[in-house]
Amino acid sequence: MTSPDELYQAHRELLDRAISAASARDYWSAFPESPSKKVYGDQAAPAGDRAFTALLGQTFAVDVPGAVGTVSTERSPYGLELGISYPKGDPQALVAAARAATPGWRDIGPEGRAGVAVEILQQLHARVFELAHTVQHTTGQAFVMAFQAGGTHALDRGLEAVAYALAATTRMPARASWSKGPLHLEKTATVVGRGVGLVIGCTTFPTWNGYPGLFASLVTGNPVIVKPHPGAVLPLAVTVQVCRAVLTSAGLNPDIVTLAAEDPGDGIAATLATHPEVRIVDFTGSSEFGDWLEANARQAVVYTEKAGLNTVVVDSTADYQGLLGNLAFSLSLYSGQMCTTPQNILVPRDGISTDAGHRSAAEFGADLAAALDKLLGDPRRAAGTLGAIVNDGVFSRLTEAGTAPAIVHPSTAVADEQFPGATIRTPLVVQLDAADEKTYTREWFGPVSFLITTDSTAHSLQVFSETVRAHGALSALVHSTSPSVLDAARSAALDAGVHLSENLTGGVFVNQTAAFSDLHGTGANPAATAALTDDWFVAGRFFTLQSRRHVDPS
Amino acid sequence: MTSPDELYQAHRELLDRAISAASARDYWSAFPESPSKKVYGDQAAPAGDRAFTALLGQTFAVDVPGAVGTVSTERSPYGLELGISYPKGDPQALVAAARAATPGWRDIGPEGRAGVAVEILQQLHARVFELAHTVQHTTGQAFVMAFQAGGTHALDRGLEAVAYALAATTRMPARASWSKGPLHLEKTATVVGRGVGLVIGCTTFPTWNGYPGLFASLVTGNPVIVKPHPGAVLPLAVTVQVCRAVLTSAGLNPDIVTLAAEDPGDGIAATLATHPEVRIVDFTGSSEFGDWLEANARQAVVYTEKAGLNTVVVDSTADYQGLLGNLAFSLSLYSGQMCTTPQNILVPRDGISTDAGHRSAAEFGADLAAALDKLLGDPRRAAGTLGAIVNDGVFSRLTEAGTAPAIVHPSTAVADEQFPGATIRTPLVVQLDAADEKTYTREWFGPVSFLITTDSTAHSLQVFSETVRAHGALSALVHSTSPSVLDAARSAALDAGVHLSENLTGGVFVNQTAAFSDLHGTGANPAATAALTDDWFVAGRFFTLQSRRHVDPS
Repeated sequence: MTSPDELYQAHRELLDRAISAASARDYWSAFPESPSKKVYGDQAAPAGDRAFTALLGQTFAVDVPGAVGTVSTERSPYGLELGISYPKGDPQALVAAARAATPGWRDIGPEGRAGVAVEILQQLHARVFELAHTVQHTTGQAFVMAFQAGGTHALDRGLEAVAYALAATTRMPARASWSKGPLHLEKTATVVGRGVGLVIGCTTFPTWNGYPGLFASLVTGNPVIVKPHPGAVLPLAVTVQVCRAVLTSAGLNPDIVTLAAEDPGDGIAATLATHPEVRIVDFTGSSEFGDWLEANARQAVVYTEKAGLNTVVVDSTADYQGLLGNLAFSLSLYSGQMCTTPQNILVPRDGISTDAGHRSAAEFGADLAAALDKLLGDPRRAAGTLGAIVNDGVFSRLTEAGTAPAIVHPSTAVADEQFPGATIRTPLVVQLDAADEKTYTREWFGPVSFLITTDSTAHSLQVFSETVRAHGALSALVHSTSPSVLDAARSAALDAGVHLSENLTGGVFVNQTAAFSDLHGTGANPAATAALTDDWFVAGRFFTLQSRRHVDPS
Repeated sequence: MTSPDELYQAHRELLDRAISAASARDYWSAFPESPSKKVYGDQAAPAGDRAFTALLGQTFAVDVPGAVGTVSTERSPYGLELGISYPKGDPQALVAAARAATPGWRDIGPEGRAGVAVEILQQLHARVFELAHTVQHTTGQAFVMAFQAGGTHALDRGLEAVAYALAATTRMPARASWSKGPLHLEKTATVVGRGVGLVIGCTTFPTWNGYPGLFASLVTGNPVIVKPHPGAVLPLAVTVQVCRAVLTSAGLNPDIVTLAAEDPGDGIAATLATHPEVRIVDFTGSSEFGDWLEANARQAVVYTEKAGLNTVVVDSTADYQGLLGNLAFSLSLYSGQMCTTPQNILVPRDGISTDAGHRSAAEFGADLAAALDKLLGDPRRAAGTLGAIVNDGVFSRLTEAGTAPAIVHPSTAVADEQFPGATIRTPLVVQLDAADEKTYTREWFGPVSFLITTDSTAHSLQVFSETVRAHGALSALVHSTSPSVLDAARSAALDAGVHLSENLTGGVFVNQTAAFSDLHGTGANPAATAALTDDWFVAGRFFTLQSRRHVDPS
């Protein structure tokens, strides 16, 4: 048995480094993102493959307090038969178990909890190849992306949340002395969690979007019930399994983290989210359910990350090929099934000025389509970038949008050698005018984007600011060589409440954010009430309780 | 004109000191609490008196955008004729003015805003004698208390909020460089306020409870509408007047801070609090309206400080006279009209052990009554401690409680030489049993306390924890010589979610908290959603928006 204090001592250097990176906002990562043998050795990949294969067709080995029967709800977008079942969660029993485990978790203090959290992250990292397979076959992310976004980047986001939570819960000293003339007091400050935490996972990024809330709630002193999306249970089931094993081996009650698997339609997310003892809700998913949670989970603080109208404003560029290649990749990565994928691309009707000369709006559309075809011309490479369509909802939106009268780039099927059953599609780009706001102010999550002609860049910025203020966004991008346009775009982004990327023409993409440096979400527009990760994301999860008494000053 | 940057430079040392004090939690104060001539000079007191007298019978000189007519709603608890009228606020016009002033306030940045805020505090301090009179004649606090709690301590609490807000808004660097292999980005982070702030003042501590929210919202980038209680407009009107003068002289739009005076029953607090553009609400006052705000001001973050069942658990003591004197003062100060005054005093039926021998519960009651009589025996000293009854609500609760069958200490009238019209009363202490929970789980704000007999100290702790969990509390006190009882009391306080004072027998009182060291409120029980001041109190008032772009690494 390794105590929480011993785990803290073992991981203290890493924690200090993580806190310092989060404060500096420069590049830092604790978990190498390359799945190459040079980094992970010869055996890691095949061992991960075997571990994943051993899970197939089994009842997953995780204790769930009060579970009744099992559920089996997943279907691989790659067509692999999963056949995994999970103990079915009972909301009342899960909350009761979480409550019972709370005092012991409170008493070990912030450092002990951070030590346990880092140990969990390290043990998940030891299973990162297995974890990548679980992400691939639930979300449809291609393997390398699943390894990175679903594995190492998710672990980085988890560690970032640990760092913020530890810094926030230790900023006020646990002991202080107070002297005023003849009066001398000793004071203590104790961090107490807000209550039971609930993490509601999504189907596309179960780990990347789930880990921040999970680890932020844990380190601030709360037990967490993990409620995965029925379509992506496995990555979070592995996570809960590791959490419980680490808790147990640290001599703690494992019910600090439990799994709440359900059949689609059981609605236990709503039951749990409105339970009086559930005081923290983290949610990633549809605007519809996110808005419902914000309105109805009144007894809890609710951190949501929903959807919006991610926007690109194209004014001018000094690197036209770079612009096209960068944007084509952003539209293609994981078939646009990212909450940060651009949907609305605003271009002046009269065209743009580039280093390759003036390009009309129509020419820009044709050039973007050509860039997509070039990027996705080789089927193997295309499959590795696009991944698979996660579910029927995405597919039906794609089908609906494909009936539009003016298509800039049609969506076509791509075959995958390894997984012939995979549903893989290239991005659809539809031509619209700024007047067609009924269409482009809807969210079309998936490989659907709009090339929207406007009167001018000023008009583009106005459409950008107004639509994002009203409907939200998680990302925005501007291309311009004009300092005054960039200034105006920054101002519009501040008004809209969205982060802005400028002139991305190389290997950084608008839909990607880096832990410890980039915030994901702002809270300032309707797409999210949280930013991953800032002080607001952790400060609502705990209280500081003081006690004070006279002491002899000698 | 002094620019915000120049104000920041001028006050930077004080700000650094305040941030460091808030971090260390040791004793520190920026505003001397003694109104003596030695500190403030010979002329400060008479000048303050003259300035206050000049306000009487006048229309108060403050510009209110869109005001229609005037209101005159105050009545001094000391019987002084005030006759002051104020421009009457129009909610829509106030919100529109606040919105229009926002961009300029955002653009000066956290340091500039903190510089302006400290300048406001300094200029309020220059008028602290006048401010004390305004507090005395609206709240009924005796002059010295009004000078301290309503003046210098309020300024300290305001500065503490400035320090927290500045630290929180500058923790993420405004500029960062990010390099990953060949990729180099420059990133900026801009703090943006959540929206219009609303501060709803109370009638007993308009400045002490109003300043933290006012200054926290200001420094984090928000305009603030100050809505005073109709019974205590003047202290906040002076505050708004100073804010607007400082803003104007710094070249800023004064509508960053506006006054919303109303007639009783106009209900503009509710109108403003539910306005879509009002995104932050700070409220101090009744549980009834506080709960209503939490339930209905859904578009805003709502920081409330309401009422609760402040509890004293008496087990044993090594300084019986110290205990009695300390408790008698806590019950008497400002006639118990503090949200932190003890209401429920729990004593084992079999009595307590003290350095003066065993005392039965009845003997303890008699000794406490004697201590009250001793403290309040001299009318002049009594008036200086008790202050005046603020309004009819307090008076009618006192009258109702006085009909109880078993009175430990009756409430009696005290005459004030200087203000014969003042309504001054000593504290009422009523004998109850733990079974009389229908009575003591009600809040009896004012000079009404209960001496409640229990089966044992363990029973007392159970009653303490259960009633505070259910009904809330802002303070708690335990007296015991037993380490195990103190441990159990600390544990009960953590469960109840309330700060705990232990064995206070000297010059520190359970109903007083010190800025920069003691938190006021916890958020962990129903009495408040906020603590003055912690990171949670400021983190919800702003967002951080990033932008990023490629740079040449050279």
